[in-house]
Amino acid sequence: MLILGIDPGLAIVGWGLIEYKNAKLKMIDCGAITTPAGMPTHERLASIDDQLEKLLNKYNPDELSVEELFFNTNITTGIRVAEARGVILCRCQKHGMAISEYTPLQIKQAVVGYGRAGKNQVIKMVTMLLNLPKPPKPDDTADALAAAICHAHSGSSRLAKYYNLK
Amino acid sequence: MLILGIDPGLAIVGWGLIEYKNAKLKMIDCGAITTPAGMPTHERLASIDDQLEKLLNKYNPDELSVEELFFNTNITTGIRVAEARGVILCRCQKHGMAISEYTPLQIKQAVVGYGRAGKNQVIKMVTMLLNLPKPPKPDDTADALAAAICHAHSGSSRLAKYYNLK
Repeated sequence: MLILGIDPGLAIVGWGLIEYKNAKLKMIDCGAITTPAGMPTHERLASIDDQLEKLLNKYNPDELSVEELFFNTNITTGIRVAEARGVILCRCQKHGMAISEYTPLQIKQAVVGYGRAGKNQVIKMVTMLLNLPKPPKPDDTADALAAAICHAHSGSSRLAKYYNLK
Repeated sequence: MLILGIDPGLAIVGWGLIEYKNAKLKMIDCGAITTPAGMPTHERLASIDDQLEKLLNKYNPDELSVEELFFNTNITTGIRVAEARGVILCRCQKHGMAISEYTPLQIKQAVVGYGRAGKNQVIKMVTMLLNLPKPPKPDDTADALAAAICHAHSGSSRLAKYYNLK
């Protein structure tokens, strides 16, 4: 089962692809889709869609895990993030992927074991759980991998069943 | 020149198509794309994208006019509206349309002549300016037509030039 974790944004979309098999996690690939600040919003959204489509065609992931959106800082930035998030959800839905959303609290709980963990703790645990040689960069990529790990852990019973049936 | 005005939403996407030629406005068609409340968000976004794509393929509009998004009421609803808006901007960009955004103030100013006009005044003026037999329904459709009218008026010098060159 290939799980794609995504941390949505307009400038940077972090993504991380993990394989979850026999209750083991393996990082397949990770990175960030970026768009230039000077480009009009609608062109940036179309560019994100194009880059994501290539990624989906390359790896054909089964499931998407994405963080639920909360606005607590900059509301204008928040609107742009939500627009990018809409494009991402739409593209993954059209690719036939199952889509799950988790709160930041659920993701931190699943990765660190503590819902109010700091950013550095999350990065450290992602690096450890996936046996990475060094912490993934940028932070958006680490957050995307955290979302993927959360989904693997949350759905473990269902996934185990899935593999037993196979 | 065919202008598509859109009022974004997750449950209802109002749309209105007007022709602007020789400084005259003509309503070509209008309506609303809808998605059922019980459907998961990502499926609703994909459904909006599919329905919009059909609309674009049918009429092949040149330009999109859409209201800028402001959050002043329900923030959770606002996030979903922004996600739908992202899907709409992305689809229109991919269709090769020119995209313009206007503030609610600009749209009311262009349609009613008064930036703080009420909803009913906007609907009344849209009905009058487009010589419609009755006010367009739902309100989202009237708002979409208002956005299209605003764009026609705002870009009139550019459009006039375009038609002189033709």
